[in-house]
Amino acid sequence: LVLGLDPDPARLWPDAYTLVDKPGAESAADLAAASVSAHCAMVIEAVAAHCVAVKLQVACFERLGAAGWAALRDVAVRSRDAGLLVIADAKRGDIDVTAAAYAQAFIGETLTTFGPVPGLGADALTVNPLLGADSLAPFVEAARDRSAGLFVLVRTSNPGAADVQELVLREGDSVSDALARLVRAAGAGSIGRCGLSDVGAVVGATAPERLAHLRELLPDSIFLLPGVGAQGGRIEDLAPAFEASPAAGLVAVSRGIVAAAERDGGTPSQAAERAAAGMREATWALARASL
Amino acid sequence: LVLGLDPDPARLWPDAYTLVDKPGAESAADLAAASVSAHCAMVIEAVAAHCVAVKLQVACFERLGAAGWAALRDVAVRSRDAGLLVIADAKRGDIDVTAAAYAQAFIGETLTTFGPVPGLGADALTVNPLLGADSLAPFVEAARDRSAGLFVLVRTSNPGAADVQELVLREGDSVSDALARLVRAAGAGSIGRCGLSDVGAVVGATAPERLAHLRELLPDSIFLLPGVGAQGGRIEDLAPAFEASPAAGLVAVSRGIVAAAERDGGTPSQAAERAAAGMREATWALARASL
Repeated sequence: LVLGLDPDPARLWPDAYTLVDKPGAESAADLAAASVSAHCAMVIEAVAAHCVAVKLQVACFERLGAAGWAALRDVAVRSRDAGLLVIADAKRGDIDVTAAAYAQAFIGETLTTFGPVPGLGADALTVNPLLGADSLAPFVEAARDRSAGLFVLVRTSNPGAADVQELVLREGDSVSDALARLVRAAGAGSIGRCGLSDVGAVVGATAPERLAHLRELLPDSIFLLPGVGAQGGRIEDLAPAFEASPAAGLVAVSRGIVAAAERDGGTPSQAAERAAAGMREATWALARASL
Repeated sequence: LVLGLDPDPARLWPDAYTLVDKPGAESAADLAAASVSAHCAMVIEAVAAHCVAVKLQVACFERLGAAGWAALRDVAVRSRDAGLLVIADAKRGDIDVTAAAYAQAFIGETLTTFGPVPGLGADALTVNPLLGADSLAPFVEAARDRSAGLFVLVRTSNPGAADVQELVLREGDSVSDALARLVRAAGAGSIGRCGLSDVGAVVGATAPERLAHLRELLPDSIFLLPGVGAQGGRIEDLAPAFEASPAAGLVAVSRGIVAAAERDGGTPSQAAERAAAGMREATWALARASL
């Protein structure tokens, strides 16, 4: 189970607003970023015991500018301190030299005349493969240097995903299948002791009928599975993801955990903890069934 | 002509390092970001008279973290002060709620309990359409609200672009053609007095054989044309982009201007100014020819 954090600064846990204690914070951006940071810290504390990783939605931090990036770094540090892996959900993709710059931002570091500037230090990054294999290569190289990983978009969780990803190619397969082939090629040669490579795939939990097929195309890849809950996906439909290995599926849930109190009542932290505990059980049941 | 700024903090104009004057700057990130900002200011001053816009490569700022985002904002402000439009080359793409957050970051603003937090205020943003029409919609809406525009990736300038974008579909056309159809649909209804819509396309100058075809598919879209110079594209091959209108092509050049002194000699600013003047002439010749 992966805790998705996509904080909306207008809809944080109430205590996040009162606990803001940031000396020198003056602008709305500074105060909002401090609240976002406090909110994420509370959510992590409530549910870390039930999760293996956080998935940080970079957009939600980036919209607060420089203060948001500082908060993103705070939350990444706090996640690691809580024993969680950090997945930066940034969906970056660009030509080679620029992809290398994004890899520096999220995984590696940037060499400057004033010394190295550390990146976010993420354990994994989501990337967009529309620009092709040479746009993935700098991410793969940077991730491998740091024992980090990638999750490449193969079949996303939104309704419009089919517009491009499910276009049918001349040979009868789909764009999504072609993306899966890119992922397999990028991960070849990195397969570790558990039989899994360092190049995973984002496969939406909202299209379970595609899961078994993509698992056949990608027998060595960890699947990051967003879309459970608010978007309509159900954990119990995700068994094919785990067929490759009990560790081959990461179920990412954001609002289903963070906003559980809106549905179940109780305090935000109690409701989140209970929701996460139940989802962990449902996820581990799939993992155990694959043994 | 569009000035591309993708500053590498280890390869700035020499004066950028000596002119750093940022009270309180202590960390390598702060000093590097201040140098990047100074470098961009000098380049803008040298060539603004020959350009209509800057294209800011967000990755190159983002790799410096919070300090980099502050520099990105500085450079955007300075560009506008110099009379240039600001194109944020961010290539973002995500599901609807997240796309809306990125639109807040680059074009609009974010509402928070502490008041609105302004975004970058870009006049245009590059976006990645792999997630389909519903992932473009929040960007289109945000851009239209602010009289801003989008450039959607249709055929990028890198060698690997063909891996996905030129896959042949069952009907015989390509993925890139399908992306062009998404662009046309998103821009329909926004066509202004010059016959151009607010949803443009990124079409690499390195694939001129595709240009005429994409211009047929996209008669109303402004084309942002990267890839001239270091990547091998040539301005004189870009005439089809301008066939829709003299204003329908934006030739984006980065290293060909900023690093002109390495090729032509002279001071960085003199060489950049001369290179930009020549490229402006070459670009305007295409625009005039389309009248």
